[in-house]
Amino acid sequence: MDYSHMEPKDVRALIREGKITSFTSGMCNGYAQANLVVLPRELAFDFLLFTTRNPKPCPVLDVTEVGSPEPKAVAPGADLRYDIPKYRIYRHGELTDEVTDLSRYWRDDLVAFLLGCSFSFEGPMLDAGLDVRHITENHNVPMYITNIQCTPAGVFHGPMVVSMRPMTPKAAIRAIQVTSRMPNVHGAPIHFGDPAAIGIKDIDKPDFGDPSTIKPGEVPVFWPCGVTPQAVAMAVKPEFMITHAPGHMFITDVKNADLSVL
Amino acid sequence: MDYSHMEPKDVRALIREGKITSFTSGMCNGYAQANLVVLPRELAFDFLLFTTRNPKPCPVLDVTEVGSPEPKAVAPGADLRYDIPKYRIYRHGELTDEVTDLSRYWRDDLVAFLLGCSFSFEGPMLDAGLDVRHITENHNVPMYITNIQCTPAGVFHGPMVVSMRPMTPKAAIRAIQVTSRMPNVHGAPIHFGDPAAIGIKDIDKPDFGDPSTIKPGEVPVFWPCGVTPQAVAMAVKPEFMITHAPGHMFITDVKNADLSVL
Repeated sequence: MDYSHMEPKDVRALIREGKITSFTSGMCNGYAQANLVVLPRELAFDFLLFTTRNPKPCPVLDVTEVGSPEPKAVAPGADLRYDIPKYRIYRHGELTDEVTDLSRYWRDDLVAFLLGCSFSFEGPMLDAGLDVRHITENHNVPMYITNIQCTPAGVFHGPMVVSMRPMTPKAAIRAIQVTSRMPNVHGAPIHFGDPAAIGIKDIDKPDFGDPSTIKPGEVPVFWPCGVTPQAVAMAVKPEFMITHAPGHMFITDVKNADLSVL
Repeated sequence: MDYSHMEPKDVRALIREGKITSFTSGMCNGYAQANLVVLPRELAFDFLLFTTRNPKPCPVLDVTEVGSPEPKAVAPGADLRYDIPKYRIYRHGELTDEVTDLSRYWRDDLVAFLLGCSFSFEGPMLDAGLDVRHITENHNVPMYITNIQCTPAGVFHGPMVVSMRPMTPKAAIRAIQVTSRMPNVHGAPIHFGDPAAIGIKDIDKPDFGDPSTIKPGEVPVFWPCGVTPQAVAMAVKPEFMITHAPGHMFITDVKNADLSVL
């Protein structure tokens, strides 16, 4: 079944009916997919402040009203309790359950955050003729914990996680142009070249995802990664927290092209 | 006394000592100036959410920790209780006092928001050789209440306020390019041409500021305005609220050039 040319609302309907429980990559070409973080009201201000202070790793696409599961800005009518294929439930920082809907877990004091994801700029990179290595090699993007500290906010603090794509200098310059236009989905890279300069010990051993081949003449280029806010939220070991399961994203009604400022 | 070439910290020191109590326009060329909104903690999440949902009229430059008057992101070491020339105190939406420092009014439950201002993109406009009419005519920028509703958040809701600059189509195109690069200080315009299309009845009678001359061959170009968040906060008539006095802004250590994404 090919979901790549379907509309987001139709794919979300299939997810809601339990007919799709798989990874969402490749679904609804051209539409932004989002990371989910759900926290209780009393942590919501600090977490929103953390995203405000760290917009590059934590690009906010939508925040629900307290208790409401509807992401009105990016998918009016959608329901975040049912429209993601798989969720993870955490209590005090421990993964306690993995579920396909939140009917048993939703509460009136919860606030849901949808955060942008690098899928949104990889489409424009491919459109620009760039080789996105982990797509070419058909594996997950390599991600690394750096020694760059995010700006703390209230109880939240922690290091920035980055994703890496190997490129020739010429391709890197084009990629910097393409991603600079998309500040709402991570924007420009934060570093290229020497991994040690940002605290990465071994480029062949990513902390998350899979290693990408770096060819002769290429340098690694590093972008702020949407795993950062999840990792930071997790580190606080909140009493209760919900996220999407890795790779099982929320598909929004927002076109990636509309996330470009120029 | 010419403050245009002084460093922000030196001008803030003069303000703190009470030696400057005037408008800040023209001070510390090249550095971003910011609007101030201070609200009690219990309104802070809704207000931050409002700015998140309406980033074009409400570009957040900094938010302080609860009770702290230090804007750590944009001016570490500064003190928002003393470093602005003039403040306004509101109780239940009524202006009750105008003061030159907040020593009598600061509370442990207050959160201060610094919001970007169009001064930041007018420098780059002038650098690009554009005629910024209200600067040429030496009056305040004309501002209008539109029929465009901001996306509500919790208790906060209201119409977008816009600022207007008349331009030829050629100049408008260049201005769109220049301001698109600065999404953190309002970004691209939201409209040009027919004022009635966004609910403006009489272009010669702005709701705030002074009218600008529109020459033959020019169209009015409208940008989201930083007066929006203040107007929206005011409309809720919060128990307690502090703002800067009009034109008496906070001068940050951030260069306008660093607010450009490209």
